Formats: sequence, structure tokens, C-alpha cells
Amino acid sequence: MADPAKTPARTSLAGPPERRSGPGRPPSALRSAALPPPGRAPFRIVVHAVGWLLVLLAGAMLLPMSVDLAEGHPDWEGFAGAALATVFVGTALLLATRGPLPPIDLRTGFLLTSLTWAAVAWFASLPFQLGSVHLSITDAVFETVSGLTTTGATVIVGLDAAPRGLLLWRSLLQFVGGAGIVLIGLVMLPFLRIGGMQLFRTESSDKSDKLLPTTGALVARLLGVYLVLVAACTIALTTVGLDLFDAVNHAMTAVSTGGFSTRDASIGAFANPAVEWVLIVFMLAGGLPFMRYLAILQGRPELFSSDTQIRVFLVIVLGVALPLAAWLAIVHGRAPLDALRAALFNIVSVITTTGFASEDYQLWGTPVLGLFLAITVLGACTGSTAGGIKIFRVQILWTASLLYVQSLILPSRVIRSRYAGRPIDRELIGSVLSFVFFFIGSWGVFTVLLSALGLDLVTAISGAATALANVGPGLGAIIGPAGNFQPLSDPVKWLLVLAMLLGRLEFFTLLVLLHPAFWRR
Amino acid sequence: MADPAKTPARTSLAGPPERRSGPGRPPSALRSAALPPPGRAPFRIVVHAVGWLLVLLAGAMLLPMSVDLAEGHPDWEGFAGAALATVFVGTALLLATRGPLPPIDLRTGFLLTSLTWAAVAWFASLPFQLGSVHLSITDAVFETVSGLTTTGATVIVGLDAAPRGLLLWRSLLQFVGGAGIVLIGLVMLPFLRIGGMQLFRTESSDKSDKLLPTTGALVARLLGVYLVLVAACTIALTTVGLDLFDAVNHAMTAVSTGGFSTRDASIGAFANPAVEWVLIVFMLAGGLPFMRYLAILQGRPELFSSDTQIRVFLVIVLGVALPLAAWLAIVHGRAPLDALRAALFNIVSVITTTGFASEDYQLWGTPVLGLFLAITVLGACTGSTAGGIKIFRVQILWTASLLYVQSLILPSRVIRSRYAGRPIDRELIGSVLSFVFFFIGSWGVFTVLLSALGLDLVTAISGAATALANVGPGLGAIIGPAGNFQPLSDPVKWLLVLAMLLGRLEFFTLLVLLHPAFWRR
Repeated sequence: MADPAKTPARTSLAGPPERRSGPGRPPSALRSAALPPPGRAPFRIVVHAVGWLLVLLAGAMLLPMSVDLAEGHPDWEGFAGAALATVFVGTALLLATRGPLPPIDLRTGFLLTSLTWAAVAWFASLPFQLGSVHLSITDAVFETVSGLTTTGATVIVGLDAAPRGLLLWRSLLQFVGGAGIVLIGLVMLPFLRIGGMQLFRTESSDKSDKLLPTTGALVARLLGVYLVLVAACTIALTTVGLDLFDAVNHAMTAVSTGGFSTRDASIGAFANPAVEWVLIVFMLAGGLPFMRYLAILQGRPELFSSDTQIRVFLVIVLGVALPLAAWLAIVHGRAPLDALRAALFNIVSVITTTGFASEDYQLWGTPVLGLFLAITVLGACTGSTAGGIKIFRVQILWTASLLYVQSLILPSRVIRSRYAGRPIDRELIGSVLSFVFFFIGSWGVFTVLLSALGLDLVTAISGAATALANVGPGLGAIIGPAGNFQPLSDPVKWLLVLAMLLGRLEFFTLLVLLHPAFWRR
Repeated sequence: MADPAKTPARTSLAGPPERRSGPGRPPSALRSAALPPPGRAPFRIVVHAVGWLLVLLAGAMLLPMSVDLAEGHPDWEGFAGAALATVFVGTALLLATRGPLPPIDLRTGFLLTSLTWAAVAWFASLPFQLGSVHLSITDAVFETVSGLTTTGATVIVGLDAAPRGLLLWRSLLQFVGGAGIVLIGLVMLPFLRIGGMQLFRTESSDKSDKLLPTTGALVARLLGVYLVLVAACTIALTTVGLDLFDAVNHAMTAVSTGGFSTRDASIGAFANPAVEWVLIVFMLAGGLPFMRYLAILQGRPELFSSDTQIRVFLVIVLGVALPLAAWLAIVHGRAPLDALRAALFNIVSVITTTGFASEDYQLWGTPVLGLFLAITVLGACTGSTAGGIKIFRVQILWTASLLYVQSLILPSRVIRSRYAGRPIDRELIGSVLSFVFFFIGSWGVFTVLLSALGLDLVTAISGAATALANVGPGLGAIIGPAGNFQPLSDPVKWLLVLAMLLGRLEFFTLLVLLHPAFWRR
């Protein structure tokens, strides 16, 4: 993510801010003023932002390079080459776009959010192509996008014996991707009004509907929270017995709800219940709205505990995990605490879209498969590192459904409802319904395409779901929690790359670019 | 269906008709006048309608009774007993509710549409319980609901050797159900404004937003068209070689897009390509909007050919069937015409929600399974006998999606769009999105429940889909086109009964009854 504090933040959003429009607004107020035509200015901003990101990315590559150098593993040359190429291109882009930049408008916001990911993903995949694992371009891009989108599906077989630099690079990708998505979710998406995210305009943007300079302070505080969570998770994991390397890696991929592991058998390899309990806590922490952590820092913890999204999320987690634990205890005869941990760990892992596995939950029997498929697309709280549909949209849908049923019974009565202190109007409901429709529609389209490429139905359905929701494992023998995405064909992998990006960018950030009106002068 | 001509048709709909409300309407016009509280009057109307329906149902039972009598099969006693019980209860209900009836208001409309099905289904299942097949209550209700909802999933094994009265009764249920759903779809649902059906208010209801007496004439004409289609199909089927009994039965289950057959192997049993071509035509005919047939009768065929829903529907059918035929010809080496027929027949059978099978299309390979699953829920045109989401909703969703993406790019511009000459406003989009959301949400819930009852994922997913969309066959070994629903457990069958009714009644007709506001005085 470009640091918005680095760019002048006045916006040239021409239209009236939609927040000011209510149902009672007379039609005369509906101005048809369009945005100024897109010139080359938006691209200059995007190119400049990509330049900064590449320089930062090259800096990040020095970390795994140092690890491989220290261990004497020749992979350090791959990272060095990748870092050189990346910093070279990044600097060139920065030089080409130096000078004062225009303000960020809506169009630039869409371009910035979507195009930067493609550019970063390409350069971030270089170490996989140049290093000793020598992934093909397809595999390298798949692994990188799976990392940056915090999906966690892997095509690398033999993690246990892989060089540490490579393992660290995978975790770093998820660490960076998780931070990026928190910032995008809390700064850009509300600004772009995607999928009901206008509900989550922060106080700073509230005042003037502009990306104010104070955005910079907000970004810094959110990154601070993120770093503190990762540090706390690292300490907790070392305390319960992991070595520092494993602890750092899993802390980064847990808080980012990414799910990459340093082991082929994922968390199951440690056979350490305490590790699983720690990760349950930090996966949940990664799935909570990050803005609420700031409330705690500001001495207002009641904002945290009274957040309906957090409450509904935790109720859903317990409502699913407790019966599942009972099932494991009764049907499979497991000890109560063991059953509870196994159920909680794997449910939390999937619902927070992390994707760690402690065991193959497919062996728990067919009755749990539908459940795991359903929570795959559900996702955790908005404004977290999690993917999927997300709890607040489920809440809005529930409210909207009640309102709709009421409107059928009482067609003339206007019923109002609120969420997070703001009215649930038709515009908001339309945004949320459109998002969910696109999510599910894409799920259907990707299922048909994956099936047409020869995957069996369970792999196709769960593969589309796990990619779109950025979870990681699917169902079935190939991509299940005990499987690996390596055996899939290249066209399948590219489809999944597209699905991971679509889901991570909440669909519309990419889709608006396909609409002619976006490019019209 | 109650014949609306039989009941005084003035409505007491208190609120302003929603058609008159536009986006520019000031809030002061939003009256909060509620409906008059529900007293016992709505139930009197419903009971009276059920009385009439039971008397008619008893009359219908005389047909299979006569067939069994003529053939000397003892099953005639089962039909006689069922007819006696049904006519007895029906007459009692009519007597108990004789006298002038109050007008039909919105609440009564919901009760009438949903409750009559339950009552009719129970009595219509009696012949299955009393006859020689001696179905259990679960199986009898499943078979009856599958018939009345024109789903076509069967639990009866051994149709080839079954008495003719039983076979005729199954077909009659679909014939009656198909007629009922055309009338509900064109008279009640637009009145109830469910899932965007307000778009399809007929001219008569347009003028005053009331169920006018001319509704009677409309009903008569629609039933006339329906009978003509069934008669034409019967003649065509006898012409290509079916005996009269098979021809009548399949004509009734093709035009009603029901899909019950007189043979265990469905249409495949006849091994007659001409039969399949005839059925392709009449399944399509059953899937077209019945109002458009009236336009032909009124000498305005251009209304038929210019209907965008019909065009999009046929384009989808060909767009799916032609590549599939090419696949069959190239990969499976089938003769072009044979491949085209096989592809068209099975695609049309599923997309019109009929459910006839000419062969097990699961043997065509995994690449076609996702496709068949997707078109299972798509459905044909609205105002036809077909189930599913339906083409017009897909069209509205497409338009709404474009509008939504445009609104993200140009937040201040108001973009208007029309469908069938009426504006696509936010209320309409909300109705359609709510419907699709409930359809897909129910699909998810039923999948999880069916999976929890032990079905494998493919059977659970496709079973939920085929029941909700009233298609018939699902995927997998048990409920696939070559399978039978008999092996499923009783709880699974009851879940599927609920799903068939929910889908057939377009969800909200049943769901509004669960909302406290519906019962509030």
C-alpha cells in the first residue's frame, strides 16, 4: 500500500458525498456532475506508488537474504538478484514520476488499489523463480499471490527441508499482505464505497469526506497495533516451545490470517496443544476489526466489547465449534479438552480465513464437510486481515431480509434501522447485496470453470470458495487440509490466482476497471 | 389454486400502491397506514378455498380410479377411499364457511397461496398410502409434493410394473401443479410483490392495483393455453410412436415442466429420438412466459418474439447446449445430430426444471457437472411452469450490477434503466436481490443440513439445488439422472419436501408467515 500520508490528500471528488443523501432528498438535488475525465495523472500516482512499494519490497528481500547468507545457503543469491531488479525498477519509476503529484480522486483510488497488487506480485515472485526451489512462473506467481492475499494455499512440496530464507519470504509476503489489507479496508474501501464499506468511514474522513493528512496518523497507529500483535504472538509461541524462527514465521502468518506454515504438515507437525491454543487466540485477534484496538489504546475499551460485529462473530465461532467439539467427543470418543481444541482450532482457522491445519478434518466424517464449506466463505470481521463475505455484511443482510419481509406485509410503512450508529438505507443494502451477489456469482462461475478444466465437483466448489475467500485449504484429496495445490494444472492455478485477487480486492476494485464508464473522458 | 373469480375481488390494501412511489417522492407521502388487523376472515377464505380445491381434487382422483377399474386392478379401491375422504372433508369445509366472504387482502393472499398447498398435498398423498404401492407417509408426501411442485424427483422404484392408475395420478399431480403455478405466478405473486414479481402485474391488475373480476377471464384463458399445449404435445407424441397412455402422461409432465415419467429409465426407456425432439419443444414451451401466448391469441405475435426474457432464455439454452454438443461429438465421438439431441434434451430438461433424463449425463465426464449444477438453479422464464431463479431475475441482476458499478465510478449521477417498459428502481432491485439472496442462502443452509444428515457433499449440494429449483434429478450415484430418491433417509426426505415447497412458493410466500408483524393485530 502506498502511504497516503506521502501524497497530498485533498480529493477532487466532484459529486455530493453520498452520506449527505437521504431518502427524503428531492430529485433536484441529484446533480449529474461527473468526475473530471481521467488523464495521465492517475497513472502517475499509481506508478509513483508502485515505485515506492518496489523499493520497500526490495528492502524486505534483504531479510531472507541475510538468513540464507548466515546459514550459508546459496539461495541468498536469488534474493540478492531479485532485490536488485526490484530496487532498480522501483527507483526508475520513482524518478520518472518525481515532482508534485495531483490529489487522489476516486478513479485514482480504484487504480491504485488494484494495479499495485499486480505489480508487487510479479516482483515478489522473483525469489521463487530465482531461488533453489526454481518454481515455474505459474507456481511462483501462485505462491506469491497466495501469500500477499493472505490465502495460504501452497504449491511447494517439501517445506520441512526448504531453505529458511524461502520460508521467511513466504511469511513476510503474508505479513505485508495482511498489513496492506487492513489499511485498504479502513482507508481506501470506505472511500471507494465498495460493498457497504461506506459504513466504516473513519472519524477523520467523516468530517469532510476527504482523505485527510490525519490519515497518516491513523495508518501509523494501525501498523503499530499490527506489529504489537505479531510481537505478542511471537513471544507466546516461543514461551510454549517453538524456536524463534518458527515462532516469528507463524506469528506473521497467524495475525495476518494467512496460514502459510514452515512445515508440510502445517501446525499438526508440532503436535503441541499449547501452540494451537496460542494460535487460536491470535488468529481470532487477526480477525477482529483493527479500529477497535485503537479504541482500547484511547482508553475506551467499551467500544471494543460493545461492537456488535465482534459479538456476532464470537457467537458464531462458539455456536459452530461447541457442537462440533461435542460431535468429536461423542462420535469419535476424543477427550473433551482435546475435542474442544481440535474443533476450535480448525473452525477458527477456516472462519478467520487463516487456513492452518492441525489435522485432516475431512476424516471427522461427511456431516462436517458442509459446515466447513459454509464457514469458508463466511469470513471474520471487516477491517481485519480476514477475507470472505464478512460478519457485518451478514448482519446487514439479516436486517435487510427482515426489512424486506416486513415491507411485503406492510407495504406502506417505512421502517428504519441502524448499524454502527448509521442508518441502513437502501443504498447501503444495495451495496451489500451487490457484494454478496458478486461473491456468490463468482463462486458459481469459478466452480463451473474449474469443473470444466476437469476438477471433480468437490475440489472445484471448495477450491473456488477457498480462493475467493482467501482461506487456503479446500476439500477433497488434492486441496484438502492434508493436501497441496501442486498437482493442479497451470490453467487451474491461474484461475485460482484471479479468484484470490478478486476476493482480496472485494471484487469491485477490479471490476470497475472493466466498465467503459471508468475510462470515458 | 382458488379461482379468484369465485371470490369478491375488491382488496382492502390500505397503503399507497408501491407502483406510484418513485425515487422523487417526498417523505411526507410515506404513509404509515398498516393493514387492518388479521381477524378470522382470512382463515375463512383460506378454508373455503381449500374446501373447493379438495372437492376438485377428489374429482381428479376419479380419473385414475376409472383407469384401474377398467384394467381390473384392485388399486381402484385406494383411489375410491381417498376420493371419499377428500370430498367429505372438502364439503365439510365448504359448508362450514358458506355465506358471503370478505374481500381478499394482502394477508389473505399470503395465507391462501401458502397454506392451500400443504392441505392439498396431504389429501393428494392418500392414494399413495392406500394403494398397492403402500408408500410410507414420508414417501407418499415426498412423491406428492414432488408432483405438485412439478419437481419430479421420485421415490417409487418399479414404475415399469406399476399400475396405470398410480402412474396417471403422478402425472395428474404435475399437471395440476403446473397449472397452479402459472396462475400463482401471474395473479398472486405480482399482487404480493414477491421477488420483483411486481414487474409482471397484468393489465387488469395494473389499472387499479386490485384483483379485479376480469382476473377470472385471464385465468380461463391461461388454462386454455395450458390445455392446448398439453393436447398438442399428446398428439405429437402419439404421432412419433408413443401409445396414448404414455403420450398423455408425458405431455402432462412435459408442459408442466414436472418430469415424472411412466418408466424407471425415464425418456431413455423409449430409445426414440423423435420423442426426445418433441419433448424438447414442449419442455421449452412450458418454460416460456404464458402471458405471451395470450399475445399470440390476440393477434400480436410481435409481443412474443420481442420479449427480451424469451430471447435471453433461448440464447442461454443454445449457448450452453451447442458447446456441449460439440464436446459430445469431439470427445465422445458421437454423430453430430445425436450429440445435438442429447445435449439439447438434457440441458433443456434441467434448465426448464423438468428433469426428464434420456441418459446419465454424469457419464459425459466431470467437465460438464459444474455446468449442470449451475443451470439447475437458473430456471426458465417467469410466468411459466418452471422453477429456479428465473431469467428475468438474472436480467435484473445483470442490469443492477452494471448500475452499481457505474454508481461506484460516478457516484453523483442518477442512472435509470427499464425492464418490460417499467423503471428498474431500487425497490425492484432490492426485491430481486433479496429473492436471489434467499434462494442461494437457502441452498447453503439445506446443503449444510443435508450434509449433517450424512449425505456426501455432491449429493447434498445438488440435492438442495434440485429441490429448491424444482428440477428433479441431482448429481451423484443416488439422486443423479439414473438414480432414485428412495434410498434417502426420512429426515432427508422431509428436508427436501420443505425445500421443494419453499422454492415453488418463491420463499417469501412462506417466510412472511414466520414474521411476527404478519400476525400482529
